[in-house]
Order: sequence, then structure tokens, then C-alpha cells
Amino acid sequence: MSAVLEDIELRTGPEVMDGIRAASKRLEGVARRTPLLTSRTLDAIAGGEVFLKCENLQNVGAFKFRGAYNALSQLSDAQRAAGVLTYSSGNHGQAVARVGQLLGINTVIVMPDNVPPAKLAATRGYGARVVTFNPNETSREAVAAELPEARTHTLIPPFDHYDVIAGQGTCALEIHEDAPPLDQLLVCTGGAGLLAGCSVATHFMQPGCHVIGVEPALADDAARSLRSGKIEVAENTHLTIADGTRTPSIGRRNFALIQAYTHDIVTVSEEAIERAVLFAFERLKLVMEPSGALGLAAVLERAVPLTGRTGVVVSGGNVDLGVMQKILANAATRHAAD
Amino acid sequence: MSAVLEDIELRTGPEVMDGIRAASKRLEGVARRTPLLTSRTLDAIAGGEVFLKCENLQNVGAFKFRGAYNALSQLSDAQRAAGVLTYSSGNHGQAVARVGQLLGINTVIVMPDNVPPAKLAATRGYGARVVTFNPNETSREAVAAELPEARTHTLIPPFDHYDVIAGQGTCALEIHEDAPPLDQLLVCTGGAGLLAGCSVATHFMQPGCHVIGVEPALADDAARSLRSGKIEVAENTHLTIADGTRTPSIGRRNFALIQAYTHDIVTVSEEAIERAVLFAFERLKLVMEPSGALGLAAVLERAVPLTGRTGVVVSGGNVDLGVMQKILANAATRHAAD
Repeated sequence: MSAVLEDIELRTGPEVMDGIRAASKRLEGVARRTPLLTSRTLDAIAGGEVFLKCENLQNVGAFKFRGAYNALSQLSDAQRAAGVLTYSSGNHGQAVARVGQLLGINTVIVMPDNVPPAKLAATRGYGARVVTFNPNETSREAVAAELPEARTHTLIPPFDHYDVIAGQGTCALEIHEDAPPLDQLLVCTGGAGLLAGCSVATHFMQPGCHVIGVEPALADDAARSLRSGKIEVAENTHLTIADGTRTPSIGRRNFALIQAYTHDIVTVSEEAIERAVLFAFERLKLVMEPSGALGLAAVLERAVPLTGRTGVVVSGGNVDLGVMQKILANAATRHAAD
Repeated sequence: MSAVLEDIELRTGPEVMDGIRAASKRLEGVARRTPLLTSRTLDAIAGGEVFLKCENLQNVGAFKFRGAYNALSQLSDAQRAAGVLTYSSGNHGQAVARVGQLLGINTVIVMPDNVPPAKLAATRGYGARVVTFNPNETSREAVAAELPEARTHTLIPPFDHYDVIAGQGTCALEIHEDAPPLDQLLVCTGGAGLLAGCSVATHFMQPGCHVIGVEPALADDAARSLRSGKIEVAENTHLTIADGTRTPSIGRRNFALIQAYTHDIVTVSEEAIERAVLFAFERLKLVMEPSGALGLAAVLERAVPLTGRTGVVVSGGNVDLGVMQKILANAATRHAAD
């Protein structure tokens, strides 16, 4: 990629908040108002009240549906007729494909050729054209830029886009409408669309609530960025089990909002992530993908001081079957040793 | 077992319905009011609206908490001080243990020695004394009857008990309060405590709604009993993956209520049960145990005509890790072959 960045006009917090409220209206009756679940077992472990916002129960199994719908539904007739292009190794791609199907918009999704076959099949099942590439040879942005559709289709990137950020922010908007006042909100962090949107919504709706991002220690670019004051890059993010957080760095629009409205970003170990997925399965009876279990991992690992009421965004449930089998097998071995 | 049955005084439907309403008050703030979830994917498959009552998200991961609490909370001080005895290979045992812990009542649970270690550990974790036996040599009823505690403790059997039936019936009471009028309600069936309670509640609250029991074809004693007009016994019920339905026959109190208030009992194949557990995992992001997925299996297998609005009781989520691993492995093999 070129080192020369395009100029972008950053929006203010109140402008983004207006976008979140507008997104919330657009999503009414389209996205699911996902339940906010509690568990006494979890409360006992946390030593306080924990509220789980279950975006794993969202359409396409992840919060990404919100941002994709908010962005695509605002396109002009001409843009809709031309189609939409995006790159994503996971849930954003599925979400754009599904929303395209709902709104009658042709979609083209650029995906690395190593994504699980089930994800590929699901994305194609929504009617999208999928273009795969070898991630060792080129980047998804480069592939997308070189496609003929790059000249005709509207690009909806996975996180560095204000309509996407606003859509994801509706997640926190619903939390603050449905939960008693929270002391803190834990939000998993990849490209930081969800974290940026949730931080803004929380600042304007529940200013006493601290928003804390959660990253795998193996993909800690957002945490380092917040500390250093500039966007840092994570290497070898493929090593984390949390495949939704493997983006090398967060977006510029996202970073500006996080600097202003996010209180902290903490990291969790791979072991804690795996334990959280298992805890969700065994005790909560919920299927969480590793990236979606980061907030729960922070609770179980006590990566944050747990006082009062804690909200946790469970961002998605699209776990690969092979990954889940491994987690269950490891657990069975551990249980047998107990 | 002796062929001479004790005399029992059967209660009328209105009496049982009064018990369900009283149970509902007792359970307020104690049991979870579990969510009624919907899925567009499922609706599309069913060709109608489907409402899932998620008792897998209930305390101890199953509806059994309702009946156990309703029964134990009505014991006198003297009975509470003496303790409670029950037999159960699964969720009823855990539920009685957990309720005993909540109410400060000593509990003794008779379990076959082949139950998964996790279930044994969970039951002991709630503070119960667990007595195991070899199911090839004797019956759980016989073991329970021979324990010294049989003379001092109150026996709370898993399904053939009016307080237990009333507790389980609150499940349908909540469904009819929370859902739009249903055309049919699918209820999984083992000893038929849940089916009896839900049939009564439905008859008095939503008389236009047909209640249909669902059994594994490999443990179809309830279906045969309803047809023949007498309690039938199922042999080799250990062959079904739905371990919660392995009771050889339904209870006498249960049977009388089912004859009066249940419209039909259908059976589903082992393949459909496994497919339902997988569908719940992959598409709904919910963990269901095989017995808990019987209603969903009936929808997927179209074991019942699906018209209008269908309620499905998802009875529990306590799936054995080994069983789940096998289901995921089979699915991965199938996906790879697709």
C-alpha cells in the first residue's frame, strides 16, 4: 500500500451520535433486537452483575449485519443498480452479501482463499460473487482495487466507514436502553468499528459508563495505538484463534473516535479466549466464536477490575466447526484429568 | 418392580391448572423467564412462524428446575429438615440438587454409574450426595427404595408427581403469555412431566392450540401409549442419542392428563435429532442437548404438518461434550463432501 493516505474529513462525536440514532431507526424491524442475557453463575464468578448483549443471535450470526444494512440501505438508486464491493475474511462479507440479497443489490466479496469452506458457502448462498486471493501474495485491498468492479461498484469497507460505525453503535444504544445503568462496557476489537460506535453511543447516552476495548494479546494493535497516540500495526495476527480480530490495524475514523471516547483497551490470552468459548457452551448454552468471546474472556481472566454492573458485547457466533471440535476435545481432556 | 400399583388419586385438569398458576407465582424471580426466540432461516424452512422457548437457558440448563423448585419449596419445615431423595440420570437430579442448595435442604440423588462425569460433578457441585448403581443389575427405583434415606427423606420423583407437573407446565404458561396465539406447540417427551403440564396449560389458556408430543422413534412408548390407551413400555431406549427420554414408560398421573389434553405424539429419527442439534449450533447459535432438540427435529423432519404459528419447547442444553464432538465431526465430514 502507498504511504500517502487519502485526506478524510473526520466527523465529530455528536455527528456520529446523530448517525447512530438514524441507524437505529433504519434497523427497526430489520435487524434483531438481540436479547441481553444474564447468568447467576457468571455473576458469581465476576462478583457483580454481567449483562451479555447477544449479537451472536443477530442476523448472519454477528453484529456486522447492523453496519452493512445501515450503509447499503442509504445508497442511491444508481449506486444500488451498480452494485457493492467489499473485502472481508468473515462476518462483514456475509453481512454485505445478506443485505445485498435483502435489498436486491449485486455484491462482490473479496476473501482470502483460506477461509473455512462453510463461510465461503454461506456468503455464496446469499447470492454474492466471491473473489478469493492468496493472502501470502497480495492484500485484500489490492485485489479489490484491481477488480473491474472497483470502477463501478460502491466500496463498503468493513470498519473504516461512518455508516458502518453508526450501524455498529446501535448495539450499545440498545444496551443502554435495555440495561440498568452500567459501570463499564466491554467491547471486542478488530478494526474497531464496533468499539468506535459503542464508545460514542455510551458517551452520549450513559456518560458514567466506561467503555473498554478487548483484544487478543496476539493482535494488540488497538491497545498499543491508544497508548502511543498513533495507529500501530500488529504482525502475525494469524496466530490468534480470534479470527475476527486479525486485521493488522484499526481504521483512521475509528481511531479518532476511540481516542476521544474509549477509556481503555485491554488484552486477553489465547487460553482465556478458549476458556470463554467453552464456558459459553457449557454453562451459558450459547455458541460464541472466539472473537465474539473476547469480552467474556476479559471477565473470566479478570483483565479488568469488575465492580458494579458490566455490559459485554458478544459480537458473533460463527465459529468454525473444526475450531470448536478442538476446544471441546481439549476440554474433555481437562475434565478427565480433574 | 411389583406388579401391584399403589392407588393414586388422579387430579382433574382444572385442579392441575390451578397448580400451574400457583407454581408460576412461586417461580417468579427464582426461575428465569426464558426468552422466546425466532429465526428467519427457521421460519423459511418451516414455511410458517416458529417460536423457540429456550429452556436450555433456564437455571441448571433445563426446564427441570421449574418442577423441582415447585415441589421442594412446598415442603414443610420438618420435611425440609429431613431432606429430599430422588432418582435421575440427568437434569432432574441436577435440578433437585440445585434447588436443595438454594433452599438449604439436604439432597440424595440416585444415578446410574454410566452418566457422564461432568453431570456427576455438577450434581455433587450443588452439594448433593450422589449414590450410583449399575443399571444392568438393578433399577433406580429399587436402589432408592433400599437406601436408609428412603425412610426419612421425601421422595420427589422426576415426573410422576403433581407438583413437578405443575412446575413444568409454567413453561407453556409463559409461552402463551409471551407469544401471539399459536396453532400448535411441540413438546419433547420422556416421562411426560413437561408434556402433561404444557398440555393442561395450553388447554386452559389457548384452547385452539394443538399440543403435540415429540419422541425419538427409538423410545416411542408415549406415542404407543396414547394410541393403545394404556401405558406401554419401551425397550432398548439406551439406543437413542436423546438420553433425557430413556425412561421406559411415562407416569400414570402424566398419562391421564395426556389422554385428556394432548392432541398427538409423533416420533423423529436419530438422524433428525442429530441434525437439529447441529442446526441449533450452526444457525441459531444455541446449545441444545439431543432430548432438548426433539421439537426442532420434528420441524426440520416435517414430522408434523407446519401451518401458521408453531411453538417449540427447547427443553435443555446439557449436552455431553463427547456427544457434541461426534455431531460436529460428522457434520464436518458431510460439509467436506458437499
